[in-house]
This record gives sequence, structure tokens and C-alpha cells, in this order.
Amino acid sequence: MPFIYSRTIRFQDTDAAGVVYFANVLAMCHEAYEASLAASGINLKEFFSNSAIAIPITHAEVDFFRPMFCGDQELIHLTPTLISEQEFRIDYQIFAEGSSDRPLSQAHTRHVCINPTIRKRENLPEMMWQWLKQWSDSETI
Amino acid sequence: MPFIYSRTIRFQDTDAAGVVYFANVLAMCHEAYEASLAASGINLKEFFSNSAIAIPITHAEVDFFRPMFCGDQELIHLTPTLISEQEFRIDYQIFAEGSSDRPLSQAHTRHVCINPTIRKRENLPEMMWQWLKQWSDSETI
Amino acid sequence: MPFIYSRTIRFQDTDAAGVVYFANVLAMCHEAYEASLAASGINLKEFFSNSAIAIPITHAEVDFFRPMFCGDQELIHLTPTLISEQEFRIDYQIFAEGSSDRPLSQAHTRHVCINPTIRKRENLPEMMWQWLKQWSDSETI
Amino acid sequence: MPFIYSRTIRFQDTDAAGVVYFANVLAMCHEAYEASLAASGINLKEFFSNSAIAIPITHAEVDFFRPMFCGDQELIHLTPTLISEQEFRIDYQIFAEGSSDRPLSQAHTRHVCINPTIRKRENLPEMMWQWLKQWSDSETI
Repeated sequence: MPFIYSRTIRFQDTDAAGVVYFANVLAMCHEAYEASLAASGINLKEFFSNSAIAIPITHAEVDFFRPMFCGDQELIHLTPTLISEQEFRIDYQIFAEGSSDRPLSQAHTRHVCINPTIRKRENLPEMMWQWLKQWSDSETI
Repeated sequence: MPFIYSRTIRFQDTDAAGVVYFANVLAMCHEAYEASLAASGINLKEFFSNSAIAIPITHAEVDFFRPMFCGDQELIHLTPTLISEQEFRIDYQIFAEGSSDRPLSQAHTRHVCINPTIRKRENLPEMMWQWLKQWSDSETI
Repeated sequence: MPFIYSRTIRFQDTDAAGVVYFANVLAMCHEAYEASLAASGINLKEFFSNSAIAIPITHAEVDFFRPMFCGDQELIHLTPTLISEQEFRIDYQIFAEGSSDRPLSQAHTRHVCINPTIRKRENLPEMMWQWLKQWSDSETI
Repeated sequence: MPFIYSRTIRFQDTDAAGVVYFANVLAMCHEAYEASLAASGINLKEFFSNSAIAIPITHAEVDFFRPMFCGDQELIHLTPTLISEQEFRIDYQIFAEGSSDRPLSQAHTRHVCINPTIRKRENLPEMMWQWLKQWSDSETI
């Protein structure tokens, strides 16, 4: 079951071409990720300033099919997938509200769990397994 | 009656000091302004790309009392005040959700209606009078 | 010959994890693109608000190898490649200044030339051919 | 003697009205502040993640006289003033390059030195006195 995040396009998201600035689409996806973590009971303040465990993004990728304008209402569908005990991937599809046949944009990010001090890989903490179980497509995590 | 906008602090809002980057507080206030316009039935896409009428900000000011952290829930109270037939001011107070006695931050912006091509003042359009009536403290607009 | 753009990491680029927020790496690459256009004599104001021709990004992709911190000096190497008469790709490599052996990050974007009103493909304008000739690796454009 | 910072307006700075988004003007001023600190030999990475001393902004204010467009070259004149042993103010004037008679925008920020853990005031560290001496108008610091 994907996590679904509703987002209104804001003036600050746009650029002088009148549409959402390309890199801001990835920032919107990250907002959806944060909302999905909070929905699984994860404390965001601790999560993003944890000195023992960090889960930085190692790769991000986004396709732009149709432009988004200030005031538009979008729905971001988020689906995480486990890659290994230290890594997961998140797929994002962004739809105009009320029209879920073809996305405006799609993206994915890849995340790896590390000890941020020594920058070595660590196994994902228990709370991330819970989060993966909750929002993943797979029955087998 | 002020317009009240609920906003979650996101990772992107923060900086390396671990709290919201100062200029982003004004951007959050502008989000509340956009939400108040939409709540009055104003089409944001047309509003912000109108070639006949624009209402740019001429002054902005913000006080920071306490820091905001990723994941925090804030309530932004927005109150517009008419200054002249071409100008209004918006006051913002930002509270931590569940604690409305002392704001974390307060701000105001001043807006003037112009013809953006010739950059001369114009009277505020009817929809802005409606918006002012709806969210202003004053009984007399 | 790649275009090389020097960029200092700023406080605003960072997030509460103390390093550059992931999507801002793509924004830095876009800055390098803008600087390369200006270096080829292209007027940026006209370029980005042209109502006859637009060259939106259709795909963007970025890998993160090592974090970047506030105050760091980076060099962004930009290399465009022609894909078709309507499309090009830009490759970016970001190095810490003074250490060009292994990039901190790499990215690429894909751009397609369209008429923004009807959103149909158009051939790239002459100025973009000049820009491609100037900064591309290829001898054969 | 003010510190002068040269800044090109970038596509990301703009919004769908075709000009720089209002809050980004304050972010540009902060960039000038960072550049002035670096010019006084201050290490920005340490400065902005120091756990013993922080110098947050308590107030910011900005006036907008004329719009700024993508590709425009601006000069930001920065002048700090000591307020007390714990506080200083920075005045900013933003000029179009090549026209220094009337600013496009002006701003100021107020900063207070604190211990970030207990959030109590502290005296400004020696390096900030040096920075104030270097860029302040006053002869008497």
C-alpha cells in the first residue's frame, strides 16, 4: 500500500518560466518521505539529527512529463522497497489531484544506512523495517 | 478573524545549525498568505501570473524568538489590514501547535497593487477587498 | 572542453544533517548551466522567459559520493552532448577545489526544445548549437 | 569600509512573477555575510556548526524598490555595526552592477551571540570583533 501525500504547489516552488523549478520536484518527494516517516511514528527531529545512524541519499532520479503550476493540487504516491539490510529505494509518482491515470512526474531515490561519524554502512534500524513493512508493496519483508 | 494555517517544519527548511533557516520563516508566512487567498476563492495560478495587476511585497520584517526544528508543527495566524486603496499589510504570528501563549516568531509584510508593465499604482481589485473583509480584524472595511 | 564553474557552499544549501541538502546539488548544477549560457553570450533573462522557445528539463539524475559542508569550495565540470536536433544532455561532475581525482557528486540532465504554448518539440535555436560547440567534448557537432 | 559582494541572479532565485522571490533577497544578503566572514579568515563550517557559540538572527527587515531578473548582476554592500558586547546589526544595500546611485533593495539583520545549548547571551568572540573592525564604518570599535 503506497503512502499518499497531498501537496499544494506554492509560489516559492515556481521559477520565472511560470512552473515548478525542476529540483523542487525532488524536494516535494522528500516532503512525502518525511510525512511517511511521521505517519509510522518516527520522530523527525531525532531522525534527521541522529549522530549514531544516518540514512543519506546516494542516488536520486526524476522524470518530468507535464509542468506544475502555482496553486495546483498534487498527490504524491510513495512506495519503498528494501534493497539490502543497509539499503532501500523509494519510488514516487506525482499525480494531479483528481486524475490518477498518468503522472505529471516520477522519481526515485536510493538511501543507505551509515554511521555518520565514520561513514561506514550499518544495518537499518528497527523503526525503518516497520516503516518499510507499512508502505512497501511487498508481502515478504 | 485571523486565517490560521498549519505547517509542518520540513528537512529542507532547516540549515546546518539544526533549525529553520531565517529567510524560510518568511517563505512559510507567504505560504499562509497563498492558502488564505485560495480559501477566499482566488485562483493562485492566475493571481501570480496576472499581467494586468500585480501585488508585490514592498517591505518584509520578521522577529525570531525561539528556534523551530524539523518535524515541529506550527500554526501561523495571518491578519491583513488595509492601508490605502492600493496597499495592505499582513501580520503573521507563528505558534507551536498546542501552545498559543507566546509566538516562536512574528512577521509582517506590506503589499502594493500595481500595473506590472508600467509599474504604476492601481486600486486593489474587488477580490482583494473580499479577502481583506474575510480575514481582517476590522469591522469597517 | 568542459565549462568549469566555481561554487562556494552556502549556509542556505545545508540542512539539519550539517551537509548540502540533496536536491540543492541539482540546483548548483543548474547554476553552472546558467553560467555556461552566459559565457556563450546568451541573455539569461530572455532565455528563461522566452514565450516562443523553451528548453525544459525532462530528466535529471544525481549520485552522491561524499558530503559537502558550508564554506567548501567546489568546481563543477559541465559537458553538454547533442542527442538529436531537439535534445541535449548535460553531464556534471562536482569536485572539491584542489582535488580533481574523485568527484564528490555527479549528475546529468536531459533537455528538450519545445514551443511552450503548444508544448510541441522544436529544433534547437542557433545560439544553443553555438553553446554546444563551445563546451562539448565532441569534434563533430 | 563596506564589504562588497557580487551576485548573479539565478533562475532558482526567481518565481512565476518572473522576478526574484522576496525572501530570497534576504538569503542573498546572508550569502554576502558569509563571504565577509570568509574574507576575515573565519572558517564557515566551524562557525555555523559551533556547539559552544552561536550568533542567530533575531530580526530581519527588507525593502524592495525595484525587481531583479534572472541573469542580472548585483552588488551587495554590507556594513556591520556593533550594538552591544553581545549584539550587532548588519545593513545591506543591493545595487545593479554599474549603477550605484539608487539601490534595488535594502535590508538589515540583527544578530545576538548565545550559548546554543542553554540559549543564554554570551559576549561576541574575538574573531567577530576583528570582522566588525574590518567592515564597520565606525572608527571606534
